[in-house]
Amino acid sequence: MGAGHGHRAASVTDTRIRVAALTPRMDVGPRDARHLHVLRLKVGDVLRVFDGQGAEAEAQILELDAGRAVLTLGEAVSGAAETPFPLTLAVALLKGDKLSDVVRAATELGVARVQLLVTARADAREIGAQKLTRLQRVAEEASKQSRRAVTPEVLPPIPLADFQWEGQLFVAQPGSAGRIISLLDWAAPVNILTGPEGGLTDAEVSGLLERGAHAVTLGPRILRAETAPVALLGAIAAAGE
Amino acid sequence: MGAGHGHRAASVTDTRIRVAALTPRMDVGPRDARHLHVLRLKVGDVLRVFDGQGAEAEAQILELDAGRAVLTLGEAVSGAAETPFPLTLAVALLKGDKLSDVVRAATELGVARVQLLVTARADAREIGAQKLTRLQRVAEEASKQSRRAVTPEVLPPIPLADFQWEGQLFVAQPGSAGRIISLLDWAAPVNILTGPEGGLTDAEVSGLLERGAHAVTLGPRILRAETAPVALLGAIAAAGE
Repeated sequence: MGAGHGHRAASVTDTRIRVAALTPRMDVGPRDARHLHVLRLKVGDVLRVFDGQGAEAEAQILELDAGRAVLTLGEAVSGAAETPFPLTLAVALLKGDKLSDVVRAATELGVARVQLLVTARADAREIGAQKLTRLQRVAEEASKQSRRAVTPEVLPPIPLADFQWEGQLFVAQPGSAGRIISLLDWAAPVNILTGPEGGLTDAEVSGLLERGAHAVTLGPRILRAETAPVALLGAIAAAGE
Repeated sequence: MGAGHGHRAASVTDTRIRVAALTPRMDVGPRDARHLHVLRLKVGDVLRVFDGQGAEAEAQILELDAGRAVLTLGEAVSGAAETPFPLTLAVALLKGDKLSDVVRAATELGVARVQLLVTARADAREIGAQKLTRLQRVAEEASKQSRRAVTPEVLPPIPLADFQWEGQLFVAQPGSAGRIISLLDWAAPVNILTGPEGGLTDAEVSGLLERGAHAVTLGPRILRAETAPVALLGAIAAAGE
């Protein structure tokens, strides 16, 4: 509790904001403070804070005005929305806003990081710094909306040949007979990889399979490059964890 | 073959166009004729025609100019891209272009029809005739791109209580323990149902379960209303068929 709260009693709210670190006393910048105002939160109200690295806790509003807020740390909340091992999406560079759509949906579906890839048929060979920052912002917003404690990292593009992974790697490959549901093992990190419009080349796929990847099907139809990762992550989400 | 084709030999192409019906001689309108021109197809080239009802066949170009084309029917092609029983997506009305995105991805992922629904928390109670036509057009385009012989029907909205289904109905429901992969049975039609932003009400879900629907999970995170159908259809596509 504190002085200055409104007429209604302080309450426990659904609001979640990201902080730099979970410390006993946390200062909140103007953007989030405005957000708390818009939601009509008051001094004494309880919300949740998360650090984007997996830590999440309750926090109470100690001070609040239009430009800033101060919170005090409450009880830790375990990251119930996280998969047991990190889930990585490696995705070829795509044109326009398609990567934003993929990053947004992938965040909702639980990925811990998105590794951008340059492949033979990728729509681009690089990505601007601004665009990368924008993708990271999309991941942050989506993380908030889906109530995750982790904000996925969006990693700048590397050539496909340089992509290293731990645990299992599943490659969405039209015409393959593998089923992710039968192959998936949550006892190790899970990685999925999807190609650009036009697909991976046969040589790229063989290269990945030689390095231990599994080719898996998404049915007999041709999917757009931006649909395949969402469909494959949907299959993983539906399998439970 | 025929008179008027260019220097190269006639070839079998990947091109697919929709026709009103598969008849021995088919007239093609200006839009598709222009498309054939742009692709540099010639008299004698072979392409595929489909009627949007599941029938698909090879066809040869008999005449072609900028405004029209005439095709002759060749061998029938079986609809390899279709699921063994029809797959229906029932989806609550969503704001803006979200329904277009859902219809596009759902078409790629093999649905035979999309039934729009009015639910308690749906973003709208109805949909304009123009918008419905636009959604149907999106289904047509996506069908072409994913090389399906069937163009899904997009059916105008009905109240959730009036929605009837044959076979199995799976409802995406946060917090449910059911897994579509374990429950799915391709020996009968498959239906999936997803709610609006804000979800179905508890009463709506109970009503469906009482009528025999299965509640299934898409993991512990909150998905946007436009992500849930794609994720669930992805799980079905990854399961095979």
